[in-house]
Amino acid sequence: MTKMIRLECDYSEGAHPHIMESLLRTNLEQTIGYGEDSYCERAADLIKQACGAPAADVHFLVGGTQTNTTVISSILRPHQGVIAAESGHINVHESGAIEATGHKVLALPSEDGKIRAAQVEALCLEHLNDPSREHMVQPGMVYISQSTEKGTIYSCSELREVHKVCRRYDLPLFLDGARLGYALAAEGNDLELEEIARVCDVFYIGGTKVGALFGEAVVITREQLKKDFRYQIKQKGGMLAKGRLLGIQFETLFQDNLYFEISKHAVDLALQLREGLKKMGYTFLSESPTNQQFPILPDPLLRYLEKNYVFSFWAKPNDKQTAVRICTSWATPGQHIKQLLEDIRGF
Amino acid sequence: MTKMIRLECDYSEGAHPHIMESLLRTNLEQTIGYGEDSYCERAADLIKQACGAPAADVHFLVGGTQTNTTVISSILRPHQGVIAAESGHINVHESGAIEATGHKVLALPSEDGKIRAAQVEALCLEHLNDPSREHMVQPGMVYISQSTEKGTIYSCSELREVHKVCRRYDLPLFLDGARLGYALAAEGNDLELEEIARVCDVFYIGGTKVGALFGEAVVITREQLKKDFRYQIKQKGGMLAKGRLLGIQFETLFQDNLYFEISKHAVDLALQLREGLKKMGYTFLSESPTNQQFPILPDPLLRYLEKNYVFSFWAKPNDKQTAVRICTSWATPGQHIKQLLEDIRGF
Amino acid sequence: MTKMIRLECDYSEGAHPHIMESLLRTNLEQTIGYGEDSYCERAADLIKQACGAPAADVHFLVGGTQTNTTVISSILRPHQGVIAAESGHINVHESGAIEATGHKVLALPSEDGKIRAAQVEALCLEHLNDPSREHMVQPGMVYISQSTEKGTIYSCSELREVHKVCRRYDLPLFLDGARLGYALAAEGNDLELEEIARVCDVFYIGGTKVGALFGEAVVITREQLKKDFRYQIKQKGGMLAKGRLLGIQFETLFQDNLYFEISKHAVDLALQLREGLKKMGYTFLSESPTNQQFPILPDPLLRYLEKNYVFSFWAKPNDKQTAVRICTSWATPGQHIKQLLEDIRGF
Amino acid sequence: MTKMIRLECDYSEGAHPHIMESLLRTNLEQTIGYGEDSYCERAADLIKQACGAPAADVHFLVGGTQTNTTVISSILRPHQGVIAAESGHINVHESGAIEATGHKVLALPSEDGKIRAAQVEALCLEHLNDPSREHMVQPGMVYISQSTEKGTIYSCSELREVHKVCRRYDLPLFLDGARLGYALAAEGNDLELEEIARVCDVFYIGGTKVGALFGEAVVITREQLKKDFRYQIKQKGGMLAKGRLLGIQFETLFQDNLYFEISKHAVDLALQLREGLKKMGYTFLSESPTNQQFPILPDPLLRYLEKNYVFSFWAKPNDKQTAVRICTSWATPGQHIKQLLEDIRGF
Repeated sequence: MTKMIRLECDYSEGAHPHIMESLLRTNLEQTIGYGEDSYCERAADLIKQACGAPAADVHFLVGGTQTNTTVISSILRPHQGVIAAESGHINVHESGAIEATGHKVLALPSEDGKIRAAQVEALCLEHLNDPSREHMVQPGMVYISQSTEKGTIYSCSELREVHKVCRRYDLPLFLDGARLGYALAAEGNDLELEEIARVCDVFYIGGTKVGALFGEAVVITREQLKKDFRYQIKQKGGMLAKGRLLGIQFETLFQDNLYFEISKHAVDLALQLREGLKKMGYTFLSESPTNQQFPILPDPLLRYLEKNYVFSFWAKPNDKQTAVRICTSWATPGQHIKQLLEDIRGF
Repeated sequence: MTKMIRLECDYSEGAHPHIMESLLRTNLEQTIGYGEDSYCERAADLIKQACGAPAADVHFLVGGTQTNTTVISSILRPHQGVIAAESGHINVHESGAIEATGHKVLALPSEDGKIRAAQVEALCLEHLNDPSREHMVQPGMVYISQSTEKGTIYSCSELREVHKVCRRYDLPLFLDGARLGYALAAEGNDLELEEIARVCDVFYIGGTKVGALFGEAVVITREQLKKDFRYQIKQKGGMLAKGRLLGIQFETLFQDNLYFEISKHAVDLALQLREGLKKMGYTFLSESPTNQQFPILPDPLLRYLEKNYVFSFWAKPNDKQTAVRICTSWATPGQHIKQLLEDIRGF
Repeated sequence: MTKMIRLECDYSEGAHPHIMESLLRTNLEQTIGYGEDSYCERAADLIKQACGAPAADVHFLVGGTQTNTTVISSILRPHQGVIAAESGHINVHESGAIEATGHKVLALPSEDGKIRAAQVEALCLEHLNDPSREHMVQPGMVYISQSTEKGTIYSCSELREVHKVCRRYDLPLFLDGARLGYALAAEGNDLELEEIARVCDVFYIGGTKVGALFGEAVVITREQLKKDFRYQIKQKGGMLAKGRLLGIQFETLFQDNLYFEISKHAVDLALQLREGLKKMGYTFLSESPTNQQFPILPDPLLRYLEKNYVFSFWAKPNDKQTAVRICTSWATPGQHIKQLLEDIRGF
Repeated sequence: MTKMIRLECDYSEGAHPHIMESLLRTNLEQTIGYGEDSYCERAADLIKQACGAPAADVHFLVGGTQTNTTVISSILRPHQGVIAAESGHINVHESGAIEATGHKVLALPSEDGKIRAAQVEALCLEHLNDPSREHMVQPGMVYISQSTEKGTIYSCSELREVHKVCRRYDLPLFLDGARLGYALAAEGNDLELEEIARVCDVFYIGGTKVGALFGEAVVITREQLKKDFRYQIKQKGGMLAKGRLLGIQFETLFQDNLYFEISKHAVDLALQLREGLKKMGYTFLSESPTNQQFPILPDPLLRYLEKNYVFSFWAKPNDKQTAVRICTSWATPGQHIKQLLEDIRGF
């Protein structure tokens, strides 16, 4: 039996070899615990530099759900909810983690995974104008993801528009960057890290899906959101005893552009796949410029491919075709994509 | 200045005079606290009798939001959510009280305020069939209201269908009866109290909107939901020190059919209003057989009426008309409805 | 069988007759709901006047546990706890309501139900000086009760000391006044309502135990605690649909000194009882100047009295004696206390 | 400047070299995510074998606070609390994580970090016998740690006694084994893993402090606690995307007795230190047979040692001496302890 090629997500392997080397090299060093070591400090400095945000606070957490929960629950007052796209990770794929901390997700309809400034404004106005608004959940912050769960990205001007509305209604803006590397490397992207740091009040740079064993780096730029954040991390179970493991990984990722290079590698392969499929006439559930592609494939082809490849089922647009998610990552060999295209062509 | 006639809700007055008399008569009696007095006991007996459910547990709570929160949070495990209509009271008008206890409201689209058995089943199947279902909120119970927030009612067969699906997926079924009296008295209603007690695992009989100063009577019929419910009431702030106030009110309401008679009075007036408006050619947002009516009125007429009447704004179907909610109650004098119809006719 | 005389608590009867008259007189008036009516407005004005706090916000809630939960959860951030005496109501008699909103009660040992400024300071210092303080619950506010659960009262200077420490560590100070009337009328009390309003950031004036059917009036004096408090009331189930019921009751209580007079009546009787028992040589669990007395009685005497009286069991200091709680209230007839003393004397 | 020798905790280094090798060897393998891979499966099998519990469920989580929170919140109903020693980790060092999920920690006094069966029984009886028990938090489960936060261990008979009381009052028994390896290797230990699996309903085997980079293995033996546990892990942020990292680590630890051998190494060194200090006449805060020692040292000696060693401050028994915590671990070189003893002797 040949080994299956897994393309269903971007976290099928361990870590980038440089990270493994760093972990190995430092393994028997002794450091203070809970993220107060010098590796975390240096990693934070590198990140602040990359963001052009010297005054930001940087914290390292273990995983995405934990990070979203910790950030959101630390910001909202009890009667407030978080605005998000209906397809947002916090709304559909975190087992109710946000609600478990007491807050409603105020979901906005979205075809492409993005929310628009006008939607946010409409929701705020509707709330403020309702005479019985105290009987409703008050919008308390905005959550977006870059890239989104549908592979799309916000443009610089789109993000600025959302930001403007957030300021108008005093809503902190939080960007989930679980796949931020792939967004930064996306085709046509004009939204740089520095701009994100400028307009978001808090965001995170994902490591789990972009080269690390695990780990997410939270960047807090708004002064009043910084206070006592480490208490929140500890309470929500995200404070790693051996915190330096996170510091070491992010230090490695943000040295010599590694984070950006490996992201580019993944996106290049994804676009190669997309263009190859397009040439063969296949269509897509959405137009994605990032490492996630959502092609619509005939069911017999899919059954054939599933002997050698693992994809994620995504949707069933009709009874003859199926949309799947195919992900590339920092670890995907170019050969896998080449082979896949050949196998499809040969069918 | 003439006094405004308030028709915007069904809780503008105090209590039915018989209740005031009962409270006055017993005022200086001494009783044990927290609902363990003989008035509560007798009221519970009368309710169990009316429901044909001698083995049920009956508890008295102060208000509706509190009752919904207490019942729902006492049933769900942390990873579960409650299925409800998008327009359900718990989803839109309780300031996130359910989420504040840690649970997501799994909202189903609904035009008329009701959810259908097929929708519930589809949601359950979708959840169960998803390979990453552990990343999603598990459906843990079903919430419906009778009458609904849109004035409509479930028929006996509709409720039985919902019940069947609930059994199939082991979901407790909870009926919010804030306006249950008006549903029982509704035009065309075939869903009697005994049937509700038979198919719902827990439900409540509303007092606040049907003759009482305040108070809701929770009826628990399913054995495994009964355990330690009084702890939940206390913790959620619903255990009245002078619990007998609730017992006295419900004893009065369930003696000599008072609850049913005053509900009928309200519904009769509402239907009178509805027919009057229909004859004049007005249309309605929804067809309601209960005490809440949602007529669509021309804006100039509305402006004229608002000098003497208070309605609830409900929707703006177009820029020349407005839909309002007009409620009757046990306390509405027939004269008010007659006068209103005349004023509209005379405009 | 003669009727039992209940002295186990101060909420055995309904409401003061003046309140019943007010409720009856206004019963069929129509008002807007949810506490936005003119009765609530007037009651709030009377209370602000009595407190010498024209800029305060006044809100009316249904019961004590609800009020404590709403106030405390509205103030604390997720990582914070509330400092209270070990015997504090929130720590032992609210079924974990505070914890249910996510917060630890940081309990301080206390013999007499009061906490001292030095204890609060010591706790704050201990927390601040701990290098792993982020692993511990941060003190976020202080809760005291006046009178306490043991019948004692804070003196003016004691409260000022607590207040000073609170300011030093930026801890909002919250006073639970479920029995505030009886404290104000207590023997030797020098802590007036105006002073309480000056040093507490938020407190409540209890109605349930002092003449009302139910209801507590929250007074918020600190500006930053006022924002969006009505959302919290609604979410925590404390917003009464017929809010005017609370307004009417508090308006009646704060007109013509009724609240203070009926409190004095109760305290006078309690002190009469205390002095009578002292003369007979009985001792007390604590020295109480308020309406709750905790005499230690020989078991045979207690068994004899329990044929005609209901007390609360409080403690068993040894195997021959029992400490009970005996409460007077606005409703206790002088004759009951006289009779009780005679029965004891005659035993 | 010489390098400091850190002895303040047992998580100053990375992972045991065998674990690093396993991670490196498997780094580029592709596996399914979220703990459903074959490494997790094999690790679970090895653990079930070591526990003699073939029917148990085994889950892998990232850290201790997270594990305690997930287990406890998955078991308790809203009105229940968890019984623990006052010094228990969940009561003092998890930033209120348990309360954040809505539950009170019912703390029992304890000198040595252990709770006794009689204490648990007394608490249960007190609760059950209180007529107003519904106003109090109901004991819902018992939490103990082995070894405790004070370095002590439960004997087999002590644990059986606690277990018996738990059964009597239907309280699930949960054992926090963050340092379980060191307890199993402790001097005089007669409580084997198989016995723990027999009497505890759920427990965890700590990896973070015993050789792993991070990770705790939860073992659920009681049938009714198994249902839907993976939802809880996900919701509480403990489900690692690359779950195999946990499987690989625990597979390595439970192959060829590694877990037990490295624990023994640490305990041997700790006892060597203890005996050495005893010979020199030093006393201890508590008698510990495990890897944590709490010697009481003269302040001048401590100041001298702190030039080369890092300890944890623990207590200040008087103004001339200080109690510190000194930890050994799987990673401590024997030379460090030898040197430390020499430095003390030489002072």
